[in-house]
Amino acid sequence: MTRTRFHQGLDDLKQKLLTMGGMAEQAVERAVRAYQTGDVSVCQLVLRDEGKINAAEREVDELAVDLLAMQQPMAVDLRFIIACIKINADLERVGDQAVNIAERVMDLANHPKSSVNADIARMASLAINMVREALNAFLTADADMAHTVLERDDLVDNMNREIFEAADYAMTHSTETHRHALDTLLVARNLERVADHATNIAEDVIFWVRGADVRHHAQS
Amino acid sequence: MTRTRFHQGLDDLKQKLLTMGGMAEQAVERAVRAYQTGDVSVCQLVLRDEGKINAAEREVDELAVDLLAMQQPMAVDLRFIIACIKINADLERVGDQAVNIAERVMDLANHPKSSVNADIARMASLAINMVREALNAFLTADADMAHTVLERDDLVDNMNREIFEAADYAMTHSTETHRHALDTLLVARNLERVADHATNIAEDVIFWVRGADVRHHAQS
Repeated sequence: MTRTRFHQGLDDLKQKLLTMGGMAEQAVERAVRAYQTGDVSVCQLVLRDEGKINAAEREVDELAVDLLAMQQPMAVDLRFIIACIKINADLERVGDQAVNIAERVMDLANHPKSSVNADIARMASLAINMVREALNAFLTADADMAHTVLERDDLVDNMNREIFEAADYAMTHSTETHRHALDTLLVARNLERVADHATNIAEDVIFWVRGADVRHHAQS
Repeated sequence: MTRTRFHQGLDDLKQKLLTMGGMAEQAVERAVRAYQTGDVSVCQLVLRDEGKINAAEREVDELAVDLLAMQQPMAVDLRFIIACIKINADLERVGDQAVNIAERVMDLANHPKSSVNADIARMASLAINMVREALNAFLTADADMAHTVLERDDLVDNMNREIFEAADYAMTHSTETHRHALDTLLVARNLERVADHATNIAEDVIFWVRGADVRHHAQS
């Protein structure tokens, strides 16, 4: 395998991963639209496409391992391939979160509405934008853009806490509508995890571009 | 770097990953013990050790990338290193679940007990054993043992669903104790995720040992 063919392989890998990212984003968007409109048929689309995302994950992994096996990569290419393998796993889990949300929405359809005050639409838009920006940072090898994704994680965490308390309050006031409040709380937790995965992806982009590991600097 | 030094590097990598696994297991065990005993001081230990698990994750990743960079590995060694990188990420997330459980337990301590019928101890023991067996399969390169881990995931999923319904039922019957039921439900979900990570680890062991990708065969 020549250097040129190897670099073409790297381009393929990037393209496949971005396609995978688009599928994962779409799944979350659909699940959230179903939450807002109550249109359960959209949930079925999310469940149907889970297998496609899983298949795309396998393809990306296989290509990444093939590239590592066929040529001793330079340091920066090696970090790129490792980043792809990790981003791939996170995108598959973003898809899993979309499935979890879709399941909650189908459950919601069978229960009376609560008065829980939760701006799921805004939280979803923040979380999905974090995934999109992390993938843009990946596409353009832009570590600064990746950093802005990391900064937004607290915002989503705070919204998750607010919705938890709002749902908790709603449950205190009515046993009849508690299931709706519970489902809403769980949707918020799933969105919070989508944002976590976006954060992981952004960290992997920084690892690739800067060769530095920025994980857990805030906590440890 | 000679072959021998390279293989010593692989042994180091395996040892470091197993140490990391032990830390993640211990964190879950402690969080669950705190749930059972109500001893909040144990939760503090879990929160305190999160930084150690994160530091261990970085060390494993750095060693893995160094090994890939220093020598063109044979196919089986390459798969082993990739498996280590992926198992590492899952173990770090097992540690995150332990932190989530510890946070729920600290919340529980401030709220009246509900009558929710949930065998968290049994569920935890199943999930922790799955992690332990997956790591044993990794230690002994035993793909059959890894397969037995995959088979047990449904059991934990079913327990999660049962506890969800039990907590839901408890919430229908009392607004005063709903928070305890809610926290219990969330602890069960965290344990279900621990089992998911064990499943991921088992799949990575099979990928390494057999060179085959067994992911998502059930779903897709």
